[in-house]
Amino acid sequence: MRLAVLRRHGILILIVLTLTTFATSARSAGPNDTITLQKILARLIGEEAVSQGAWNKLAYLTDRIGPRLSGSPGAAEAIVWATQEFHRDGFRPVTEKIMVPHWVRGEETAGIVSPAPRKLLVTALGMSVPTPPDGITADLVEAGSLDELKALGEKVRGKIVLFYRVMQRDREGDDYGPGANLRFRGASAAARLGAVGMLLRSLGTLSAHLPHTGTMGYEDGVEQIPAAALAAEDADLLHRLLASGDPVRVRLTLGCHLLPDAESANVMADLKGRTHPEEFVVIGGHLDSWDLGNGAIDDGAGVAVSMEALRLLKTLGLQPRRTIRAVLFMNEENGTRGGKGYAEAHRGELEKHVAAVESDSGAGPPIGFGVTAGPGSVERVASIAQALEPVGEAHFVKTGGGGTDIGPMKTAGVPLLSLRQDMTYYFDYHHTAADTLDKVDPRALADNAVAMAYMAYALADLDAPLPRIPEDQRQDGEK
Amino acid sequence: MRLAVLRRHGILILIVLTLTTFATSARSAGPNDTITLQKILARLIGEEAVSQGAWNKLAYLTDRIGPRLSGSPGAAEAIVWATQEFHRDGFRPVTEKIMVPHWVRGEETAGIVSPAPRKLLVTALGMSVPTPPDGITADLVEAGSLDELKALGEKVRGKIVLFYRVMQRDREGDDYGPGANLRFRGASAAARLGAVGMLLRSLGTLSAHLPHTGTMGYEDGVEQIPAAALAAEDADLLHRLLASGDPVRVRLTLGCHLLPDAESANVMADLKGRTHPEEFVVIGGHLDSWDLGNGAIDDGAGVAVSMEALRLLKTLGLQPRRTIRAVLFMNEENGTRGGKGYAEAHRGELEKHVAAVESDSGAGPPIGFGVTAGPGSVERVASIAQALEPVGEAHFVKTGGGGTDIGPMKTAGVPLLSLRQDMTYYFDYHHTAADTLDKVDPRALADNAVAMAYMAYALADLDAPLPRIPEDQRQDGEK
Repeated sequence: MRLAVLRRHGILILIVLTLTTFATSARSAGPNDTITLQKILARLIGEEAVSQGAWNKLAYLTDRIGPRLSGSPGAAEAIVWATQEFHRDGFRPVTEKIMVPHWVRGEETAGIVSPAPRKLLVTALGMSVPTPPDGITADLVEAGSLDELKALGEKVRGKIVLFYRVMQRDREGDDYGPGANLRFRGASAAARLGAVGMLLRSLGTLSAHLPHTGTMGYEDGVEQIPAAALAAEDADLLHRLLASGDPVRVRLTLGCHLLPDAESANVMADLKGRTHPEEFVVIGGHLDSWDLGNGAIDDGAGVAVSMEALRLLKTLGLQPRRTIRAVLFMNEENGTRGGKGYAEAHRGELEKHVAAVESDSGAGPPIGFGVTAGPGSVERVASIAQALEPVGEAHFVKTGGGGTDIGPMKTAGVPLLSLRQDMTYYFDYHHTAADTLDKVDPRALADNAVAMAYMAYALADLDAPLPRIPEDQRQDGEK
Repeated sequence: MRLAVLRRHGILILIVLTLTTFATSARSAGPNDTITLQKILARLIGEEAVSQGAWNKLAYLTDRIGPRLSGSPGAAEAIVWATQEFHRDGFRPVTEKIMVPHWVRGEETAGIVSPAPRKLLVTALGMSVPTPPDGITADLVEAGSLDELKALGEKVRGKIVLFYRVMQRDREGDDYGPGANLRFRGASAAARLGAVGMLLRSLGTLSAHLPHTGTMGYEDGVEQIPAAALAAEDADLLHRLLASGDPVRVRLTLGCHLLPDAESANVMADLKGRTHPEEFVVIGGHLDSWDLGNGAIDDGAGVAVSMEALRLLKTLGLQPRRTIRAVLFMNEENGTRGGKGYAEAHRGELEKHVAAVESDSGAGPPIGFGVTAGPGSVERVASIAQALEPVGEAHFVKTGGGGTDIGPMKTAGVPLLSLRQDMTYYFDYHHTAADTLDKVDPRALADNAVAMAYMAYALADLDAPLPRIPEDQRQDGEK
């Protein structure tokens, strides 16, 4: 009803109707009232539509710099660029040094030896050890889960384990978690049963001969075996061949290896608060990406959105009570050293961090915010987000938010939010060579920048900050 | 109306209604009447649903044999398999020797030298010459068409030409023709203006970092320059960099080369006609595929459908008046030596070829038949196809049919038909490494086999064959 009226009579009607609905709470909220917030939103929308600032930042980062895995030249170049870009936007950026894992990809080849000799398309999982230079050759054994693997027992010894699990498409990306768990823990679980290698059906929702990398880990005291992801088609072929009952023998060669930790940095900039500059709302995404693609959806979008949110507010002269800090984290993909480093370096100030918002689920249209904070927070964020109705579905708010990089602030009780994106197509390209600028819709990116700017402003301008995460819920559940 | 009745009262109603509509023509047609044809169709549908014969053939051909470019071991293996499979189905297959081009892919790498150094994903176009071993490095110049290229004139000299044209998705695949023309003729057109290499945005409708190969040619007397297709993302990146006005320098290395012609063969089998065994209806697809994928949609599907159509009829004891011959052509992709070879070897008998039907537009649901023949043929085929209403959209018939392999029979006036498939997603995977079994829907494949078997039977059992292509329309327009 309200929307129908809006379409017929324009924005003024929406403002009046919303006022009617929220008049009481708005009046009591001081400068952070509904009319003020709606005016701010309108200015943000207009400025971003004209400037396309988020798009321009993302285009440079992905087209001109490209892949930026921690420790790589691209990552170093991205730090320089982000610093310069913050300067151009009128800020005084700070780089905070961290040491990051420096893993490099080498040769990666694989093939079926028998019964149907064929090349297989693989890509090493991040942090995998290499095979010997001549590769490993072994029979394959298949498991759909860690439980299935365990049940295979002695059948695993001397084999390469194929973890075969078909990822389901989902707007919220809910099927990624179980897959990522398999990817992260599979190699050690297999090695404990005597396996010599691990292959994984790529965690992806499109079959286009496109292997998806992603990080894995090794348990202490368990032999480290090489691990790689297969293109969906090739995993499916192995699955069908195994189903026929024939022994399937494969060869795998990986040249990837870990170099000594490299020096890197988080990059950040502050929009100083009007009355409480010593209190912070952090907004951010991660500057590193996997090496295969250009990191447009993961997470160039989050970087562009966070940088642009800060620029929008500055350009429009919108200065909330508290400081808004954009943090571009390094090393989300394979170590979270940036997220941990920020929390450590600012441990003493985390009590003054009133919220942190991360954008790291792609560049799809915004579908709202997730919130992890103290009692009543979800309702308060929902009340703020109400005005975002013209911006995709950014006005929806649900319980449970955060992000890998801001996760380490959880132990200090900092209210954690995620700016959520529609992930329906995210896992088609996530962690692949096809994570490129063309996967981003400029309008959706602009909507995300606006939603981030708006929420950051509103949170930083609250009379009273959101209640902090209760003491008994502060264990860091992020990876 | 007719369909609504069918849904409520079942198949009998359909038969009665159809009888009412076509009673006159049906009664005059002897054994090839509507009731007989509908009974035959019902038996074909039932047998294929139970046997899944087409699927099983395709699964073996693609999973167990895989890529089968002319002259390759896979192509040779496919010939052996097809021969054995025809035997298993109760036929006495014949292989007819032909000589085929033997082009092999080698190293293929490319990259941006400046302004944004980056790997580019390329694949050589079929029949391309190699670059020197160290590759070629040159500035890029872009053209959207051969006309645009020509307009560039002297600006092309010494450059690598990027043909940039974004292919449109289309159920009938109509946008492939213009793109394929550019792919085939682009290199010589560019070389005539002094270009040193050619790059093409892959002819495809999905951006998933997946280069599409395909054949190209060289004009006599023009320098032969290397030619490759770029993954869509990489072509888009080059396009954006060029649009910014910066000079863009790229490096291209191709190791592909042409070996002496190799011995190969068409494979064929006959279901002997009941009264006119010396007259033929040819049905077929092509046994060769590109080397990158497993040739499931191009054209394992056509092979499986043609072989299975013959088996279905034999298994069900359905013997039409004339002989139905399944021909699995070799070398459709880069030379049409199989199609030309068949027409030459059977030149004397082509007068006795009453029709030829090719299936080579994928494995999508059937959307009908295309017909190129004498006056009244489309109507006659449409009348036959009417009964196919339960089989996808196979009952639609349009003017204009044929196929690359049966095209050489055109000069003899043989009525040419195509079994057409829905090509909406065909060019997502066509000529790529992702042309694999998982792209095929078993039900759609079965529908195609049934449609082919039915049409072949009906054409071979006609009282009077379709009128032949008029003399003045017999020039072979197929490539």
